[in-house]
Amino acid sequence: MERRYAAGSLQHFAAHALRWAGARGEDANLVAEGLTAADLRGVHSHGVVRTRIYVLRLKHGSINANGSLRVVHDAGPLVLADAGDGLGIAMAARAMDMAIQRAQLHGVGVVGVRNSSHCGMLAWPTMRAVRMKMIGIAMSNADAKVAPWGARTKYLGTNPIAIAIPTAHEPPIILDMATSFVAHGRIVAAATRGETIPAGWAVDGDGRMTTDPHQALQGALLPFGGAKGSGLALIIDVLAGLWTGALSGPMITPLYQQLDRAQGLGHLFVAFSVEAFTDLEGFTERVDRFIRDIRSLPPAEGHTRVYLPGEIEHLRTIEYQERGIPLPPDVVAEIQRVAGEIGIAAPVGS
Amino acid sequence: MERRYAAGSLQHFAAHALRWAGARGEDANLVAEGLTAADLRGVHSHGVVRTRIYVLRLKHGSINANGSLRVVHDAGPLVLADAGDGLGIAMAARAMDMAIQRAQLHGVGVVGVRNSSHCGMLAWPTMRAVRMKMIGIAMSNADAKVAPWGARTKYLGTNPIAIAIPTAHEPPIILDMATSFVAHGRIVAAATRGETIPAGWAVDGDGRMTTDPHQALQGALLPFGGAKGSGLALIIDVLAGLWTGALSGPMITPLYQQLDRAQGLGHLFVAFSVEAFTDLEGFTERVDRFIRDIRSLPPAEGHTRVYLPGEIEHLRTIEYQERGIPLPPDVVAEIQRVAGEIGIAAPVGS
Repeated sequence: MERRYAAGSLQHFAAHALRWAGARGEDANLVAEGLTAADLRGVHSHGVVRTRIYVLRLKHGSINANGSLRVVHDAGPLVLADAGDGLGIAMAARAMDMAIQRAQLHGVGVVGVRNSSHCGMLAWPTMRAVRMKMIGIAMSNADAKVAPWGARTKYLGTNPIAIAIPTAHEPPIILDMATSFVAHGRIVAAATRGETIPAGWAVDGDGRMTTDPHQALQGALLPFGGAKGSGLALIIDVLAGLWTGALSGPMITPLYQQLDRAQGLGHLFVAFSVEAFTDLEGFTERVDRFIRDIRSLPPAEGHTRVYLPGEIEHLRTIEYQERGIPLPPDVVAEIQRVAGEIGIAAPVGS
Repeated sequence: MERRYAAGSLQHFAAHALRWAGARGEDANLVAEGLTAADLRGVHSHGVVRTRIYVLRLKHGSINANGSLRVVHDAGPLVLADAGDGLGIAMAARAMDMAIQRAQLHGVGVVGVRNSSHCGMLAWPTMRAVRMKMIGIAMSNADAKVAPWGARTKYLGTNPIAIAIPTAHEPPIILDMATSFVAHGRIVAAATRGETIPAGWAVDGDGRMTTDPHQALQGALLPFGGAKGSGLALIIDVLAGLWTGALSGPMITPLYQQLDRAQGLGHLFVAFSVEAFTDLEGFTERVDRFIRDIRSLPPAEGHTRVYLPGEIEHLRTIEYQERGIPLPPDVVAEIQRVAGEIGIAAPVGS
């Protein structure tokens, strides 16, 4: 029988483990909240399954337990900050909060972050903007896994971007996407299960399209949407990486390799005050109507109805808050593993 | 034998025709420059072929010859402007220039535009930012032609976005893309030539995938990259349309229909000052190295080498400036047609 986990117990567990590894209380709480938010949205690849790697990196010192967001350059609406190799999810939350504060003052806030680490599900920081009735944008570069359009070898990261739009009564629009065709984790999962992958996801080590996930892991992911997705991935590395002074794709340390070496990631967070252009109520009601219009379009073949970006994840959150989160077995195994390693109690499902 | 046209003669012609139709000299010149810039990049769908429709709309009054960019709300780094149904390309240039000025003062400039008309190739305003060594972003909504992901009928526009990055010695990176899988014009062209279209471009009036361009024109385009491209298209309508107070997709008048009715389009322009975060020289040299790294990756099957976004268009511009622009026959026919209608000399190729 499927077991479900209370969000609070996952959050408590992750915070406990991170504090055990040396994280400051406030950082541990922010990271645990961000991880749990991902599981609540059903994005388990970015949920509490990540607790163990953050713990390991904290113990190795490549995530700095004392790292904090230090302002390098303050240009009013724009701030460049150095994360000092701190916990990426906590840094992302603080950087977005800073962008929100700047947008409250100036109408727009742009915060670049360098020397950071894996910052989790990007929807989460943008949800902080939406809660303040602002438009939020978050992007991050990542280690090289994706072949740019026209190339046969990897250079770009899966460089994700999230954009969130506040609403009046409807769930917020939250677009959160990697710029690779699929997440790296889906290829790892196919390899683990002995399944093939669809053509178009990846190329092998010689740059040939492959349906063998093992070959794909030796090769490169492909960008989503061909040249267009590749172009977006590349722009994100420029904005979040080169502009902030972070490392870019090929220089970034992968999360699960060289655990004693800092990752050197870069992020960019933007907040727009809706009220810089128009009244908040009028805007959010226009967005609500737009959402309802699109939702009521006749569905395409193979679809039961039209969903807005982030809507399925929102519906999951409501269900999971009420009934608990159905964690996949590999996630349960991973959190039991780290619990055993550090000698704390793993969360108990029911 | 192929005929080529000097960029200057096309620009002169377009400006002449627009002035004939009542446009003010400065507006006519800006629009003619924007159109010619598109032909110079080989983007003939957005070049002087558009002269005739702008002339017709000026004569019908649905493009207002006296329309100019009026500031509605000035929030420092952010400005909301009303284009008064003026010539979209001229409005885009002025709005981007305003974003650049604000970015010079504040580090970032964001200019929203409502009540505008078709604003041409979006790469062009972003090139104005790049010339000032700034990062430029432009987006526009458009009339409903695209079915959102999961829907069988059209609602969103082809909602394009362009992002341009300044460089030291390399050509600037200029990503300019519609969020539809292909431009509407390619389906019109296939229909004209009696060709089929690949599966994945469009659905018919019943929402079924079609390879018949005539059926596709009764139906809807599909977004690029599935749910991700659809999400981007939708976000662009929110930012450029709903936020600015412009019309959104289904309410916008298509460029070639109801010529006596204003289009009501919205745009958003963003300029970032590179120097808000870092020194310009260091940044542009990092971008140059990034470009050279990517360009020298081994090419994928079917590619001779890797091109950066906007690089092919840049190479065309250099060639076309030297040897003239090889206009496609349908473009030549269209400019000869409008020349005949209004009694001015058409450009002469050689």
